[in-house]
Amino acid sequence: MDAPDSDKRRGASTRRRFLLGGAVAGVGAAAAIGLDYGINRAAESTPSAAPPRNGDEVVPFHGTHQAGIDTDAQAHATFVGLDLNADTDADALRRLMRILTDDAARLTQGEQALADSEPELAMAPARLTVTFGFGPGLVALAGGDRPTWLASLPAFETDRLQPEFSDGDLLIQIAADDPITVAHATRMLLKDSRSFAKVRWTQHGFRRAHGTVAPGTTMRNLFGQVDGTTNLAPGTEDFDRLVWSASGWLAGGTGAVIRRIHMDLDKWDRLDRGGREQSVGRFLHNGAPLTGENEHDEADFTATTAIGFPVIPEFSHMRRARSDNPDERFFRRGYNYDQPPTGEQVSDSGLIFVSFQADVDRQFVPIQRRLDELDLLNEWIAPIGSAVFAIPPGCERNGYIGETLLG
Amino acid sequence: MDAPDSDKRRGASTRRRFLLGGAVAGVGAAAAIGLDYGINRAAESTPSAAPPRNGDEVVPFHGTHQAGIDTDAQAHATFVGLDLNADTDADALRRLMRILTDDAARLTQGEQALADSEPELAMAPARLTVTFGFGPGLVALAGGDRPTWLASLPAFETDRLQPEFSDGDLLIQIAADDPITVAHATRMLLKDSRSFAKVRWTQHGFRRAHGTVAPGTTMRNLFGQVDGTTNLAPGTEDFDRLVWSASGWLAGGTGAVIRRIHMDLDKWDRLDRGGREQSVGRFLHNGAPLTGENEHDEADFTATTAIGFPVIPEFSHMRRARSDNPDERFFRRGYNYDQPPTGEQVSDSGLIFVSFQADVDRQFVPIQRRLDELDLLNEWIAPIGSAVFAIPPGCERNGYIGETLLG
Repeated sequence: MDAPDSDKRRGASTRRRFLLGGAVAGVGAAAAIGLDYGINRAAESTPSAAPPRNGDEVVPFHGTHQAGIDTDAQAHATFVGLDLNADTDADALRRLMRILTDDAARLTQGEQALADSEPELAMAPARLTVTFGFGPGLVALAGGDRPTWLASLPAFETDRLQPEFSDGDLLIQIAADDPITVAHATRMLLKDSRSFAKVRWTQHGFRRAHGTVAPGTTMRNLFGQVDGTTNLAPGTEDFDRLVWSASGWLAGGTGAVIRRIHMDLDKWDRLDRGGREQSVGRFLHNGAPLTGENEHDEADFTATTAIGFPVIPEFSHMRRARSDNPDERFFRRGYNYDQPPTGEQVSDSGLIFVSFQADVDRQFVPIQRRLDELDLLNEWIAPIGSAVFAIPPGCERNGYIGETLLG
Repeated sequence: MDAPDSDKRRGASTRRRFLLGGAVAGVGAAAAIGLDYGINRAAESTPSAAPPRNGDEVVPFHGTHQAGIDTDAQAHATFVGLDLNADTDADALRRLMRILTDDAARLTQGEQALADSEPELAMAPARLTVTFGFGPGLVALAGGDRPTWLASLPAFETDRLQPEFSDGDLLIQIAADDPITVAHATRMLLKDSRSFAKVRWTQHGFRRAHGTVAPGTTMRNLFGQVDGTTNLAPGTEDFDRLVWSASGWLAGGTGAVIRRIHMDLDKWDRLDRGGREQSVGRFLHNGAPLTGENEHDEADFTATTAIGFPVIPEFSHMRRARSDNPDERFFRRGYNYDQPPTGEQVSDSGLIFVSFQADVDRQFVPIQRRLDELDLLNEWIAPIGSAVFAIPPGCERNGYIGETLLG
């Protein structure tokens, strides 16, 4: 005989099984074997001689900061913005964040979620990270201090914002090198949140697959541009100072800006190679500034051509994005998107712009204002979604994400 | 001075460059360096000591059969169904297929398309394959013999077909291990086709990323099921006999069925593990038949439980999908899909079912009829798109795909 627990679990659904064909004895065996996920794990992983498979690679969940910010960007990411239900109060929010934290901690380590309906899909973490962010409404509900920058961004001239890609109370960023892992983790976390919140928007993004190009290669966007060369580098003093917050419940956390930038690939096609390079200020083939030879060469904004024009145009994206104030910088961690076109669209492609910075108003807004005023690239791009979140710090094994605000 | 050609090319857009900031000398340098894709190539590929990166792996384009059928399924695929424009005649069709063939041959080998607007995105083929298929309308236009099975499938009881995912004159299947490679190749090929055809539908699908699990591991679908265990194996006599056509212009080609199968994950969630295993007839943890221990064990449909019920239910998917006629088999090469939900949807997930068989009527339809009549899985799945295409044979270096029909 089986143990009472197991009997009870099976007893409840005996009638349905009977209707399904009634292999009651077979099901007993299934239950016994089915829970031995170790078998499946062994089958899906490598013999010990070989290096670990991508699928087995794990990013620690617990720590000072949440993972998924200074983690080397994975190939796939899903961003979900949720709105809390009207009846979700601070107590419910605390419960929600405990449940989400628990499942995120499990899933990122390649373990099934607590009520995982497809546990086998959790077996290949593939560097899965789950990162939570709080919108202004959530912080207000919790009764916490709202950072002054935690609000919708000021309206920009070039904005074409759609509410279905903007704002939200709770952000969940799910990223991994495997798209099935991302799909499964997203679903498990959204099941956790169902009684507390509704999905407001979902955005899928991608970069080069793990192993396609050399590690450390700067991403190219769908315009073909090298995108992100002058990024802050995790582990540096600048990164620590400019990304991580030092104050209050957000200490060890950061601020996130997520903007959906539509890229008009058809219009871009009508621009020749020289024009494209001038619009950004960098060579397309390797991302070097137009005054340099290699991607990471320092740009020379004073250089002029034989007939006296600046080599890097005044209104190029690169020049407009550069501030004289070294504090006006942020860490970018964006993803491409390419959805099947709907209606009259020929393509629905662009960039999920993601930046992390300790103070959105001081670091991001001035740069965005400069770009909004003048940036050659604005001919071909338009922000169609925008959201700002406070990313709380990480937590230790017995804690939960958000405890510094909600605890 | 530059060569006259280069002068001419640059002269045409001098005015625009001037408006863009006028770095005329800089642009000259850009044009000279910008076309040296070799530099970029070297930067994105590996030092010679290391094994080739995934991104550098190439599948031959030319040959008896088109690639992308017996090719080990890549991680990402986009399927596009196009409708020919009213003014596209047989001559225009021939031109279209020559252009598409030429660009597919280049892109799959990691070379830029002929008028590639983002040549750097073509540098990582990542096992890219491009596979073309012809719908009934295209074959009629070409005046060729239409295989009797080349038509919309008969209507099935469980069908919930949406025209926006069904039928079409021309299929382009673009598959690679890298999602940027797929996005770029798709765009280049659709640009080729713009004057000849309009996009009718686009479907993005994914499997495990390259390197996540051991090669040869059977795919899991989003229900968590091992999906495709008893598939035909490329290179076997059965595969050659059942997949490749032997007759007329299709000799060396095959027939493709592409069906979009919505999977109701929420309803599936309400079914317990035993019920799930019975609905398919296989254990979830490793895909073994309920009468076996390992995935590839032969199912014993005669086995009964202690109280006399069949161990593998009569109406299980596995049992219904199995025919006594060994010719009623096909080769499956499907992909998962998971789109952001729209409107009231909680999820928009499922399977892009793809099968290849020499004769759709004789091999696919009888099985689908059995499943349509009775299959426990029908509780949770619904076909929402359906299309049938003739996949012409491959071609040699100077030929083009479709030449046996159009030549």
